[in-house]
Amino acid sequence: MQQNRTELGALGEFGLIDKLTDGVELNDNGTVLGVGDDAAILNPSKGLQVVSTDMLVEGVHFDLSYVPLQHLGYKAISVNVSDVAAMNCVPKQVTVSIAVSNRFSLEAMEALYSGVKAACQNFKVDLVGGDTTSSRSGLVISVTVLGESSNNQEPVRRSGAKEGDILCATGDLGGAFVGLQVLERQKVEYLANPEMQPDIEKYAYVVQRQLKPEARMDIIHELSELEIKPTSMIDVSDGLASEVFHLSKHSGIGFNIYEDKVPIDRETYNTAVEFNLDPITCALNGGEDYELLFTIDQEDYKKLEKHYDIHFIGYAQELSKGINLITKQQNVVPIQAQGWNHFNEK
Amino acid sequence: MQQNRTELGALGEFGLIDKLTDGVELNDNGTVLGVGDDAAILNPSKGLQVVSTDMLVEGVHFDLSYVPLQHLGYKAISVNVSDVAAMNCVPKQVTVSIAVSNRFSLEAMEALYSGVKAACQNFKVDLVGGDTTSSRSGLVISVTVLGESSNNQEPVRRSGAKEGDILCATGDLGGAFVGLQVLERQKVEYLANPEMQPDIEKYAYVVQRQLKPEARMDIIHELSELEIKPTSMIDVSDGLASEVFHLSKHSGIGFNIYEDKVPIDRETYNTAVEFNLDPITCALNGGEDYELLFTIDQEDYKKLEKHYDIHFIGYAQELSKGINLITKQQNVVPIQAQGWNHFNEK
Repeated sequence: MQQNRTELGALGEFGLIDKLTDGVELNDNGTVLGVGDDAAILNPSKGLQVVSTDMLVEGVHFDLSYVPLQHLGYKAISVNVSDVAAMNCVPKQVTVSIAVSNRFSLEAMEALYSGVKAACQNFKVDLVGGDTTSSRSGLVISVTVLGESSNNQEPVRRSGAKEGDILCATGDLGGAFVGLQVLERQKVEYLANPEMQPDIEKYAYVVQRQLKPEARMDIIHELSELEIKPTSMIDVSDGLASEVFHLSKHSGIGFNIYEDKVPIDRETYNTAVEFNLDPITCALNGGEDYELLFTIDQEDYKKLEKHYDIHFIGYAQELSKGINLITKQQNVVPIQAQGWNHFNEK
Repeated sequence: MQQNRTELGALGEFGLIDKLTDGVELNDNGTVLGVGDDAAILNPSKGLQVVSTDMLVEGVHFDLSYVPLQHLGYKAISVNVSDVAAMNCVPKQVTVSIAVSNRFSLEAMEALYSGVKAACQNFKVDLVGGDTTSSRSGLVISVTVLGESSNNQEPVRRSGAKEGDILCATGDLGGAFVGLQVLERQKVEYLANPEMQPDIEKYAYVVQRQLKPEARMDIIHELSELEIKPTSMIDVSDGLASEVFHLSKHSGIGFNIYEDKVPIDRETYNTAVEFNLDPITCALNGGEDYELLFTIDQEDYKKLEKHYDIHFIGYAQELSKGINLITKQQNVVPIQAQGWNHFNEK
């Protein structure tokens, strides 16, 4: 329930920026000057730097009828930090630009930014700049993140996997996609019967996976402490199948993945079944899990063997052997890449 | 006239990115890896770095009924480079994200990117990353630029102006706003009579100022060669008045500006009069000129005195004396800040 409503037009662009960046703290040593001049000023370390950018568009990436603005702000930062993690790097600064129509109030934008700020605090990144403009229609959020290589190592690319490397996945997969199905069904039910109370408890985990994904910086720090440098890495934004294809293409290598090793949470599994979906297909083609997928040298296996949240799901092999799923019945099934094509949506 | 039309849906996101970034060259020594991984990899120099971002939204910042896509792509880069210039820095890398609806074809996006690439070449910046997504409605372009301090100096902020400093403006002002009026009138005329031929020649300069602004990197390089470090600097994106207010606020200082010193091109002047606009008001409140406004120590005046394109339009004074225009009739008129408020537009 919105109690107060302050029109954005009452503030103007500069007033809005002042309001939204109020209370932003700069904590990184590499940040010299944040928001407020023509550009932010940074003092990067001597190592290599990484930069990545992602744009979230209303009606394409999120549906505000069930996505709380605060979670959206958090997710916008998290998915960008995930790209830095996927380079085995540590995020340092972000810029956040938003285009927003008059249907949004100052209070709505403050909710969005409270999520942005919470994520910045959690991932230890400084919000150093951005742009705020009006939009004729929906909300658009564009984030750019800067990071630095962890532990003075070179960033890890998609291209270093070699034959025999072990393919690892963090956390669990398919949950974000299943959570989206839950939210979409609840929306339909709500529209049919606005007095319906959604069954939140039962689907809490998968809904959280969709609404508030966490970039796996914890894994990056642990790999650094264990002195493990993955040979290739990517984050799971478009589904396991699509990401394995990227590693394959960049590294020039094939993969075998064991169906029974692909980590799927129990709630994800049960909910998928309830929705008549095949759980492994949700993991392969679902997307938005923002887990890490990486390869390690066999030598490093011992160091990770007992890690509670890193799963050894397959191995790299000769390119000519292809990319296959070894099913629970030991069948070898070639995997098809099925990344999400925004442009073909209705 | 569009001869060919390839639907974006036929390519998918990765196919589109491949097409658009085809032929992108990386020329900067600080660029290690460009488009194609989770993040670009950079190797910044030892000096300070600057980062800035700007978002352009269809229907707010541009009207595709008269803005050619190629010019729009060029302008998106130029206005970001202008923010780097305004820090007395040199641009190094950009990322470009676009949200685009199905009404655009691949050929249209290629036209947009040809402008992006032309600007990157002109300003010597590397296109190192971005995001391409669909949009439910209009076109949105978000650019982030990274730069480094020129000549190993500290970046120049808005905050260093002191009493007695000379206020300088490059190029000429008000042209971009007057050009917008010309384009808006031609649009109305065209809608009334589609066979009308627009009078392009007569308004060539002001229309170019609006459609294809040039960031003043030439001035930054010259200042560096002359070993002049401005005491404060900003670029003119929202009109002279708004920018002087920013310098005043950040530096804690007032300004007197001489009306007869404010540079206004003859075509800008004549066209403003034809449109019943006051030329000096166009310069003060028009915006989008992307010239540089800066203050220099009086000691540096001699070095710039004869520069063909730097104009000495006023001086910094005690804050209590305010921000005034000294009119041609020697009247002292306080200046009002009138930056553009997107959110109040109808």
